[in-house]
Amino acid sequence: MRFDVPVKLEVLAKLTGTRVLGEGHRLVSGINEIHKVEEGDITFVDHPKYYDKALQSAASFVIINKEVAVPEGKGLLYADDPFSAYIAIVKKFRTFEKSDKAISASAEIGEGTVLQPGVFVGHHVKIGKNCLIHANVCIYDHTVIGDDVVIHSGTVIGSDAFYFKRRPEGYDKMVSCGRVIIADKVEIGASCTIDKGVSGDTVIGEGTKMDNQVHVGHDTVIGKNCLFAAQVGIAGVVNIEDDVILWGQVGVQKDLTIGKGAVVLGQSGIPKSLEGGKTYFGSPTQEAREKMRELAFVKQLPELIEKLKTK
Amino acid sequence: MRFDVPVKLEVLAKLTGTRVLGEGHRLVSGINEIHKVEEGDITFVDHPKYYDKALQSAASFVIINKEVAVPEGKGLLYADDPFSAYIAIVKKFRTFEKSDKAISASAEIGEGTVLQPGVFVGHHVKIGKNCLIHANVCIYDHTVIGDDVVIHSGTVIGSDAFYFKRRPEGYDKMVSCGRVIIADKVEIGASCTIDKGVSGDTVIGEGTKMDNQVHVGHDTVIGKNCLFAAQVGIAGVVNIEDDVILWGQVGVQKDLTIGKGAVVLGQSGIPKSLEGGKTYFGSPTQEAREKMRELAFVKQLPELIEKLKTK
Amino acid sequence: MRFDVPVKLEVLAKLTGTRVLGEGHRLVSGINEIHKVEEGDITFVDHPKYYDKALQSAASFVIINKEVAVPEGKGLLYADDPFSAYIAIVKKFRTFEKSDKAISASAEIGEGTVLQPGVFVGHHVKIGKNCLIHANVCIYDHTVIGDDVVIHSGTVIGSDAFYFKRRPEGYDKMVSCGRVIIADKVEIGASCTIDKGVSGDTVIGEGTKMDNQVHVGHDTVIGKNCLFAAQVGIAGVVNIEDDVILWGQVGVQKDLTIGKGAVVLGQSGIPKSLEGGKTYFGSPTQEAREKMRELAFVKQLPELIEKLKTK
Repeated sequence: MRFDVPVKLEVLAKLTGTRVLGEGHRLVSGINEIHKVEEGDITFVDHPKYYDKALQSAASFVIINKEVAVPEGKGLLYADDPFSAYIAIVKKFRTFEKSDKAISASAEIGEGTVLQPGVFVGHHVKIGKNCLIHANVCIYDHTVIGDDVVIHSGTVIGSDAFYFKRRPEGYDKMVSCGRVIIADKVEIGASCTIDKGVSGDTVIGEGTKMDNQVHVGHDTVIGKNCLFAAQVGIAGVVNIEDDVILWGQVGVQKDLTIGKGAVVLGQSGIPKSLEGGKTYFGSPTQEAREKMRELAFVKQLPELIEKLKTK
Repeated sequence: MRFDVPVKLEVLAKLTGTRVLGEGHRLVSGINEIHKVEEGDITFVDHPKYYDKALQSAASFVIINKEVAVPEGKGLLYADDPFSAYIAIVKKFRTFEKSDKAISASAEIGEGTVLQPGVFVGHHVKIGKNCLIHANVCIYDHTVIGDDVVIHSGTVIGSDAFYFKRRPEGYDKMVSCGRVIIADKVEIGASCTIDKGVSGDTVIGEGTKMDNQVHVGHDTVIGKNCLFAAQVGIAGVVNIEDDVILWGQVGVQKDLTIGKGAVVLGQSGIPKSLEGGKTYFGSPTQEAREKMRELAFVKQLPELIEKLKTK
Repeated sequence: MRFDVPVKLEVLAKLTGTRVLGEGHRLVSGINEIHKVEEGDITFVDHPKYYDKALQSAASFVIINKEVAVPEGKGLLYADDPFSAYIAIVKKFRTFEKSDKAISASAEIGEGTVLQPGVFVGHHVKIGKNCLIHANVCIYDHTVIGDDVVIHSGTVIGSDAFYFKRRPEGYDKMVSCGRVIIADKVEIGASCTIDKGVSGDTVIGEGTKMDNQVHVGHDTVIGKNCLFAAQVGIAGVVNIEDDVILWGQVGVQKDLTIGKGAVVLGQSGIPKSLEGGKTYFGSPTQEAREKMRELAFVKQLPELIEKLKTK
């Protein structure tokens, strides 16, 4: 997330009760979780295993729980609990605003767009032209929707990322400040759920079509002209390239890539990245031809075992 | 879909910018996709592979992209792009009508039926007697619901078929003009989605009960007294006979039949038709006893391989 | 379900047209299905297989379709159809009340709790402090929600149990009179469905977090600090202990226990109880290590069969 106006590092230090290591007057232009950092951003790190990754990332500023040498051109905030300091900044710059009416006055809605009854449109939402938003769809704050988009009833766009930090006493929530961005000509079926990014954007590419009850996790980026059948579930931080087809009830684990034009047959479970241009099946997925061959061999097992016993 | 009043073929030619082959004054009584055609219907075909099927189907009129001999008693429309001509007719005779209020004045609602708050009822919907429609259910235009039906919150009845035609530049939508028909004494759980037919009807038979988050695709016909547990997903154009039981998370592929009284265990995936009266398991499904036996053999594999190595 | 005021057994006999065996003036304090009975309760039994279980249960009163000796300290109602008699009592003491507005006047809502637009809150609902209930959530009658709870859009809390009795002519509904109880600090994602108990309570323990499209069946009791990823489906009468993690699309069958700290990998199907502290995978589930080993052996099958053929 970009701040509307850059903020001095020392202002963030004061807000979070942390201590500046380096120059406090430098300007912070945004806040991002480590997967999405850009120059000017502040991020956080609280585990020694990831100190180097964070300090060497594109982020210009890091909230950290160890006094380390300040890298050239960067600034640090020292915090006992960097996660909580990070969350405090998110909450300050993306404060939850209660909605008093179903369609926020701050929403921008394009010409020719139809909102059916019972639709909820949060604050700072932008919807393009000639869209059809069916009854009882919910669109959370800050969502951006292009032109010629159809969204069927009951679908929820922009719900929070499912991202919690385990503490001894229970789970602590990573508050989301990202958005959902839906490109032109997308169609989304009924009762789908598309989570917003933790700090970046969840993106649905132009011309992509989803059937009913599809779930898309936070910060997932989906290409153009993909086709997802009903009840597909996609975790967070997934990268799906153009022209990918996922058939019904496919599950996709987090933090992987599905290559352009891949086709995944129904009920498959995808645990790691898949090359494009191929057809896959199984849980965990294999190339479909190989999996089918394996299934045929398994059918021969009884006979095989019989044969062995008589030897 | 039947037209309210039959239409001359030449009128449809003018509407779609196509050319009549045969007699233009003959009357077209309805429009249907090839799976559902009846006498008097107009349908379309755009691939040489299916020319014969369409020309020999029950349809009296065919939109086609080749100049062929007009079959006895039929009429043709020649179009460069039959799909687009077909869609133009659908849109003309089943125009989307925006809803200005949550419950359309054109809806007919039977005595004793309760609609809880937040329910959406579209245009030309019929709901029978003594139904209970829970909060925030969405019922799209033209849906027909019988007596003594219960529908739980968040469920969507009549969303569009998931049916797109691939073009070089992206997907083109097959606009649905069918309906959902729900018979008496059906109960549908929370957050289910039942798509309307492409041109015919999606049907839920008398006394059938569905748990939550069940998905039913377009033009699927379900018999009487079926039982579908939570998160079952059924694709389009499926025929499920009476007394079928599908346990949780079962997936059913399109264009197949499940015979009367079949029982399918949880998480199974059904890729082709199943005979009635049997119990099935697995993805892809096998008879449950056979599948269980196979799983038992797989467990013996490590020992078997050990044995082979020492030979 | 407890009655507000205890009721004489003979009053229930009159209500249901049944005959008292034993003393009719004794007081019945509640009604429960056999899985949940406590002292003072009335329950029912209609199958000889379960007569002893019902008569020896904690229930003080049993509706039964056989004239048996009245056990010491108990009372019986003789009915031709005990199921229907039981349902008649449930309907009398937990009558469905239509909601005329989206938020019932009988609901108690704590300080600092935000209800977004389109939320439905039924009768006799209690919601604690500082909760955030997002747009279009549905909360059925009698639900109890603690403090600091977040519920995302489209979620349905308290829909009916999926519980039907097969009769020759179709299914007869077991009317639910239980509740959903959600403890403090629970977060529930978008488009989840949590069914009420048949006669007892469905419980979500403190600090438990669910992603989107999770389904929880009737009378299921979930411990503290569990984590359920998207599209998990849990049947009825399941007992999930503290700190259990279920990854995406896991399915859990009814009437079993998952031990403390168990982790179940994505798309697994759980047919029977699992010991705590271990990691599981597969449908049906095995310990993950064992399942992975089995999958590796299956991959060796083609080579193995080749080897055998050449012997």
